[in-house]
Amino acid sequence: MAEPNEDEEARRHREKMEKRKAVQDAEVASKTITRKGLLMVHTGAGKGKSTAAFGLVLRALGHGWKVGVVQFGKGQWRSGERDMLEKLGNVSWHTLGEGFTWETQDRARDEAAARRAWDKALELMDDPEIRLLALDELNIALRYEHLPLAEVLAALTGRRDDLNVVVTGRNAKPELIACADLVTEMTLVKHHFAAGVKAQEGIEF
Amino acid sequence: MAEPNEDEEARRHREKMEKRKAVQDAEVASKTITRKGLLMVHTGAGKGKSTAAFGLVLRALGHGWKVGVVQFGKGQWRSGERDMLEKLGNVSWHTLGEGFTWETQDRARDEAAARRAWDKALELMDDPEIRLLALDELNIALRYEHLPLAEVLAALTGRRDDLNVVVTGRNAKPELIACADLVTEMTLVKHHFAAGVKAQEGIEF
Repeated sequence: MAEPNEDEEARRHREKMEKRKAVQDAEVASKTITRKGLLMVHTGAGKGKSTAAFGLVLRALGHGWKVGVVQFGKGQWRSGERDMLEKLGNVSWHTLGEGFTWETQDRARDEAAARRAWDKALELMDDPEIRLLALDELNIALRYEHLPLAEVLAALTGRRDDLNVVVTGRNAKPELIACADLVTEMTLVKHHFAAGVKAQEGIEF
Repeated sequence: MAEPNEDEEARRHREKMEKRKAVQDAEVASKTITRKGLLMVHTGAGKGKSTAAFGLVLRALGHGWKVGVVQFGKGQWRSGERDMLEKLGNVSWHTLGEGFTWETQDRARDEAAARRAWDKALELMDDPEIRLLALDELNIALRYEHLPLAEVLAALTGRRDDLNVVVTGRNAKPELIACADLVTEMTLVKHHFAAGVKAQEGIEF
């Protein structure tokens, strides 16, 4: 037979959990807007910004949505991963970046590449079938002022109500964060580079 | 013709970028350990912890790896997404959690579920074909002490050298962080729940 103090502990645990569940249920019930395309931002110096965006692409494809992807950087993802996502559904994928500016060392070329990528993004935003648009590394193009921030913000905030957009890249502009519905900062707590371990194939590229 | 001060600006830009590239190239060259399975942790109160882990699964499948997934929570991911990942490759997927303790309000049941999930994780760690193992929401089970921390850490740190593991869930134990190669904290900067917007199908579940 259970000792009385064990019963007491189980009762207290149950009461605490019931209280927590009530708080959470009330919070969920208070949300009244049932659908609105979100503007999401993944920023910070940590890992996972693009990886989580591609996880969202996977989830959206799982819902049978059409998805657009524009990469403003060269894209660390090999064509293999792109092929896999395209195999799963309707993905319109465009890798239009020329690489980061410290690789190319040519500002005019960087600006032209960013413009091409942004024009493609605008085109995809006009496609009413697309329900999720991933703008990978757009934050980098904005940070280096390869695109006019005001123009980008006007298009993003004026988007269709059912279009979800996820923007990735470190150093997100504060003005973009102000317009966004959901902003996550990926913070690097610890990195194996510090221990002399190279970037890992299969994990980082 | 370009004005002299524009030439000067372009030259300064190029020099700055060349310097940055040299620093980065030197940093990459300093990494000497070429392969070692990583222990990765995605923690923090922000979004994207599990989503980024499933993005890693996608990437690993793109490399033709066999992947194991154990969900210690109920898993917000619908079976549709699981089916999609399984379509892409060799995934051994196990959703063994019973839901969070504030849902079940039964500690003995939570502990039994965590044990079942952990036993499956150990089994998958023994499969030499598996190169990536995702332990989704393991941090929650450790936080509520549904599993003995010392046992889990011993198994994770004693894993095969070529096995990558990613552990997700908020409130990662400091002892786990100490053992990990790569730790990312997903920090919530801004959330649409605060504006009364409900969880979005296709994005959050």
